[in-house]
Amino acid sequence: MDNITIGNKLWLEKNGQFFLGKGRVELLKAIVICGSISAAAKSMKMSYKKAWAAVDDMNSISDSPLVIRTTGGRGGGGTSITEAGKEAIELYEHFESNASAFLDDELKIVQQ
Amino acid sequence: MDNITIGNKLWLEKNGQFFLGKGRVELLKAIVICGSISAAAKSMKMSYKKAWAAVDDMNSISDSPLVIRTTGGRGGGGTSITEAGKEAIELYEHFESNASAFLDDELKIVQQ
Repeated sequence: MDNITIGNKLWLEKNGQFFLGKGRVELLKAIVICGSISAAAKSMKMSYKKAWAAVDDMNSISDSPLVIRTTGGRGGGGTSITEAGKEAIELYEHFESNASAFLDDELKIVQQ
Repeated sequence: MDNITIGNKLWLEKNGQFFLGKGRVELLKAIVICGSISAAAKSMKMSYKKAWAAVDDMNSISDSPLVIRTTGGRGGGGTSITEAGKEAIELYEHFESNASAFLDDELKIVQQ
């Protein structure tokens, strides 16, 4: 029982399909920062193809898209996260952080 | 938010090393039932080599072995699980089932 820690991986499914995990959340946050899928992919050392496929998959699984392409405007357009995208990130991080705290407590109880 | 479910994978580490996950717990339980590593591996459609490596790894990471080879006796010997092995299975299943129940509740709270 000494030096035991609990590892945990959490993801969201929608209608039984993989929807959102740690990597996709990182990608969404990188899109917010970088303003484009290609720059976000580069920042994560992920291939553009893989990043695009992930975005495409999330958008099609979700009731409304998480990532949209905005065209024109002063900045010449770009890629941004919708309200649904922000909510999905928050939901994932809410569960993730609560689960981590819960498992920390569970470990302490057993180790008492 | 409709039709969202939470997927979760949990494992135990000891001194930062992977120690026990779902697959290894299944293997330990199969060893209890089958009485040998080779029969347990076969029942799980796992290679004998992989099963043996997993047992070897668990035994060396744990303070005391989880699986031992018993020689001689009426049945001609075999492989069995130690008290430490039983405790490891119980510990994993304890965390696993508590985490599942917790995440079910967390999902209900959000979906209210």
